[in-house]
Amino acid sequence: MKVGRAGDAPPFLVMDVIAAANARAAALPPGAPGILRMEVGQPGTGAPRGARDAAIAALSAGLPMGYTEAFGLPSLRARIARHYAERYGAAVAPSRIAVTVGASGAFPLAFLAAFDRGDRVAMAAPFYPPYANILTALGMEPVMLPCDAATRFQPTIEMLERLDPRPAGLIVASPCNPAGTMLAPEELAAIARWCHANDVRLISDEIYHGLTWGTVAESTAAAFSDSAVVVNSFSKYWSMTGWRIGWLLLPEDLVRPVECLAQNMFISAPHVAQVAAEAAMDCTEELEANKAAYAASRAALLEGLPRAGLDRIAAADGAFYLWCDVAHLTNDSAAFCAEMLDKAGIAATTGLDFDRERGARFLRFSYCGPAEDMRAAPGRIAAWLGR
Amino acid sequence: MKVGRAGDAPPFLVMDVIAAANARAAALPPGAPGILRMEVGQPGTGAPRGARDAAIAALSAGLPMGYTEAFGLPSLRARIARHYAERYGAAVAPSRIAVTVGASGAFPLAFLAAFDRGDRVAMAAPFYPPYANILTALGMEPVMLPCDAATRFQPTIEMLERLDPRPAGLIVASPCNPAGTMLAPEELAAIARWCHANDVRLISDEIYHGLTWGTVAESTAAAFSDSAVVVNSFSKYWSMTGWRIGWLLLPEDLVRPVECLAQNMFISAPHVAQVAAEAAMDCTEELEANKAAYAASRAALLEGLPRAGLDRIAAADGAFYLWCDVAHLTNDSAAFCAEMLDKAGIAATTGLDFDRERGARFLRFSYCGPAEDMRAAPGRIAAWLGR
Repeated sequence: MKVGRAGDAPPFLVMDVIAAANARAAALPPGAPGILRMEVGQPGTGAPRGARDAAIAALSAGLPMGYTEAFGLPSLRARIARHYAERYGAAVAPSRIAVTVGASGAFPLAFLAAFDRGDRVAMAAPFYPPYANILTALGMEPVMLPCDAATRFQPTIEMLERLDPRPAGLIVASPCNPAGTMLAPEELAAIARWCHANDVRLISDEIYHGLTWGTVAESTAAAFSDSAVVVNSFSKYWSMTGWRIGWLLLPEDLVRPVECLAQNMFISAPHVAQVAAEAAMDCTEELEANKAAYAASRAALLEGLPRAGLDRIAAADGAFYLWCDVAHLTNDSAAFCAEMLDKAGIAATTGLDFDRERGARFLRFSYCGPAEDMRAAPGRIAAWLGR
Repeated sequence: MKVGRAGDAPPFLVMDVIAAANARAAALPPGAPGILRMEVGQPGTGAPRGARDAAIAALSAGLPMGYTEAFGLPSLRARIARHYAERYGAAVAPSRIAVTVGASGAFPLAFLAAFDRGDRVAMAAPFYPPYANILTALGMEPVMLPCDAATRFQPTIEMLERLDPRPAGLIVASPCNPAGTMLAPEELAAIARWCHANDVRLISDEIYHGLTWGTVAESTAAAFSDSAVVVNSFSKYWSMTGWRIGWLLLPEDLVRPVECLAQNMFISAPHVAQVAAEAAMDCTEELEANKAAYAASRAALLEGLPRAGLDRIAAADGAFYLWCDVAHLTNDSAAFCAEMLDKAGIAATTGLDFDRERGARFLRFSYCGPAEDMRAAPGRIAAWLGR
């Protein structure tokens, strides 16, 4: 029987790495040094205590936890709107906030509301693979803007001007995955204004906001454009991956289209997770402690990896990733990662997951795992590479 | 700036009824009889105690609740597979079970994996609106099979044979929403075999399984076809709407395509809700008590509504809906429902939500609300209609 073409979406190669790392870890003799997990994009910390407590309290009270409104609990939407005022000084009406099933659930809603089948949507390469895979599944066409260290792996207006025909949309992410690099506020502002002036719908993925390291100031596209769509999530800074709560900050013209789509495609985001997410926004002390641990891991790796031979690292402005150019060591980063797992006991992600053209010379380290593991990584790599 | 055409999905009219009922309820003087809520499709009971306790225990233990595998917790997938053995006597490998973000999250995965843009997918009318709205958003074409009481509002092979060209797929639901009617096992078997023989992908929505009233035996399409896709959810029998956990039982050829799509579009279903759902499958006593309450409400309505003047009710085989033909009372069921809310204090859903062609002469009552409210409804309607 026939199978749809959308199922041809390429798998994440990191899934194979995860499986191989699990197998290696299970086969280790007792007492042997463990596998250092640097392939995963999720904090190991779990939701902050206050978020868990709020969920437990709601469940213990026996609240029915039925569907919420399609756009989420009014109190959570208001709390997110307040977050824009407090963090960015941006006035945002709660009516523009749509709570979604993670950022993953936000993208199909945003793409379907903003674009039509056949529309071209540009993005920097390397890129987060679901951008392209979801667009393709929906019949839209991802258009890659090859980027490198010269522009911090971020797109520029010059690149956009060269696109002919002009795309219907542009996805930016600052900080981005996998490179961890950022657009400066004036660069994001210029891109947002160029998009608005040129009828190009800007989708700004701000999921790594809050995890920035001071090299570049954090800014939201919502401050610069009334037509931009902002995507965010509780998965990263708020450390709530498996709870599946994200949000869209919508321009006025997309509020009603997204609401109709969300009613049909999701009904609502999970109720108890919305309760927990709202509480998480007040757990600043615990979350800042998590962030300090990432900062320490980042510093240890930026100091140790060059001495181990990995000295071509993209500007580590934000998120918890280091994007390493390993062209001087291999022309096959998938094989390189497999050997690093086998010989050094370190799991990392081949760049091919993020850039099918040029990813064979890159790999991505994630440093959101245990701090002691991150500190141990450079020494193991140095020993393996004979430094 | 441009807006995508997919955002044109029609809204649920029931949302307006809900808002109007909320407004009416808020405006009632103290002590006045309340509004009887018969418009909502979700149990008021909430998750069973054992499900809530399992969630509380997992959260209290401080488990990190990160992403699960894209297809869900292995223990939950195994438990669902066991359910097929226990309830239907069907041997199902856990590898064919994909845990999803509700049944809502299952439909886009199934449609994208099974069909391509432009493909025609048939379904009985009246129908659950998201079937058509999601297909349309994905660029596929819903094809309506107008059904009436003569076939219990269910499709027949004769209707399918008449389709030219033959569709790529068929959606059946037994029990169905809104009519609450079922296909007999031999009818479902014949449809499943016809679909398989004719390369028509069968999507069997079995979300109301467990809530059947003995007029027709319950059966699963998986017992009759190796190519059918089965959709189910914890929202109805298990009373867990807002937890957003459903599942797909997939044919072998769609397992890998759906997995790749799910990795990209959802990453995973909410973790704590998966823990709760697994526990819910062992809460039979509480769930059967809920079911007995629905059965009592159903009996009271089937006895009382005809005496109140609503005597053309579709065979109430399952789910918690009554689909009433009100053509002898109105040619505008939306106005009729608005007046019933205003004059009798009863909220119900216009048939236009489920059948844009013929729904003006139907309305849907949901009887999953409080039993005393359901018992009170016929008397109020009789008084309003002057019976």
